[in-house]
Amino acid sequence: MNIVLLDPRQTESELWLITSKRQLEHLKQHVNVQVGDHLKVGIREGQRYLTEIVEVTEQAVKLKPIQIEAVPAKLPVTLISAMPRPKVLRRLMMDSVTLGVEKIILLHSYRVDKSYWQTPFLQQLDQYVTLGLEQAGDTVAPQIEIYKRFKPFVEDVLPSLITADRPAYVAHPYAERKMPFAIEHACTIVIGPEGGFIPYEIDLLTKNGCQAFSLGNRILRTETVISYVLGRLFSAS
Amino acid sequence: MNIVLLDPRQTESELWLITSKRQLEHLKQHVNVQVGDHLKVGIREGQRYLTEIVEVTEQAVKLKPIQIEAVPAKLPVTLISAMPRPKVLRRLMMDSVTLGVEKIILLHSYRVDKSYWQTPFLQQLDQYVTLGLEQAGDTVAPQIEIYKRFKPFVEDVLPSLITADRPAYVAHPYAERKMPFAIEHACTIVIGPEGGFIPYEIDLLTKNGCQAFSLGNRILRTETVISYVLGRLFSAS
Repeated sequence: MNIVLLDPRQTESELWLITSKRQLEHLKQHVNVQVGDHLKVGIREGQRYLTEIVEVTEQAVKLKPIQIEAVPAKLPVTLISAMPRPKVLRRLMMDSVTLGVEKIILLHSYRVDKSYWQTPFLQQLDQYVTLGLEQAGDTVAPQIEIYKRFKPFVEDVLPSLITADRPAYVAHPYAERKMPFAIEHACTIVIGPEGGFIPYEIDLLTKNGCQAFSLGNRILRTETVISYVLGRLFSAS
Repeated sequence: MNIVLLDPRQTESELWLITSKRQLEHLKQHVNVQVGDHLKVGIREGQRYLTEIVEVTEQAVKLKPIQIEAVPAKLPVTLISAMPRPKVLRRLMMDSVTLGVEKIILLHSYRVDKSYWQTPFLQQLDQYVTLGLEQAGDTVAPQIEIYKRFKPFVEDVLPSLITADRPAYVAHPYAERKMPFAIEHACTIVIGPEGGFIPYEIDLLTKNGCQAFSLGNRILRTETVISYVLGRLFSAS
């Protein structure tokens, strides 16, 4: 947690109040906050501030804003990922948010086990977003969309995301061309499930405007590939 | 598991034998192997082969090698990481191995809790390496070294890793210059603990030949930063 995210309602008075159990525990046990300490705070969907702690009680930490700080810019990228195993979902969401992805789309695919869509973790996406934002020092949540049918999404939604300025790339181990790097424009990136997209899916994606690129001859896990490909694509920024 | 790694002793006869419980379970439950199927197999520290399954029993899967396949090249990089929390160690090792890091060094640092060095997970590094190699389709384990004292390592060992052709970079949020990208030479990369290196440590690292570079104004977790920085550094390869 590199900033504490607050709801705008917690910052309406002159002094701001941290009351969430999770945040209080972190501040008391890990940061060991004391009156007079400085603390970085973000307001959800708003500004980021340097604040000073004016009171620490059992139930709350009271803050006084001192100065505005910059909120880090997002990466101009839409990430479309096949719905991962429940264990991987948290990491995928946290990493994507921490790295600054603007929009995250979770998509069904042939090799996605249908049971993955039943996971209670899908009810916790907002928590994962909060953790990712607090890690990165960001205040603005990405858009999240879920599509449980592959073909209608690829045929009806995907083409509307693609423009000349904003191409879409699908990572595919058997593509001949290598994934671009150091791009200086927005893009959409599509990541397959464990085991990869099936040929029919790659075909449908490329027919609907995606360009297929390889990331080399090592096969990476979904949770590894996201930060790897974002580091590569936006290496010039 | 994209290949099955075998010990050279398992491949001395004409027919090869898979007998490990973990590998058999994976092949039977997830891959549902049948006689006649092809299977990718690697020999530890040796070649990779396409094989054909000739027998499946309770205790073993028997294989016949068909042809040699290419082993993916390593990244020419030494990764020095502050010893992470035990929960993160597995992922750090697996990701580094999967991405092809040649040499991994785990290092103590001021913000590394001393208890981390007591974790039983340190006895399982070889398992994590095997999982990473099987994921990547690689057969060659990286070198692994452990240094439980920061200063002697940085003063006595680190300088011997650095040459004009092989610079060392430390990722540091407050560095003014940005981390290089698309490099076409070997390097050593140094990653700090949660909370970062303390100023004394950054100072000692730079005095001993490391160049400090920033990865932008988002603060990433150790487990995210490794694939991100490798994607960035080796984006041209």
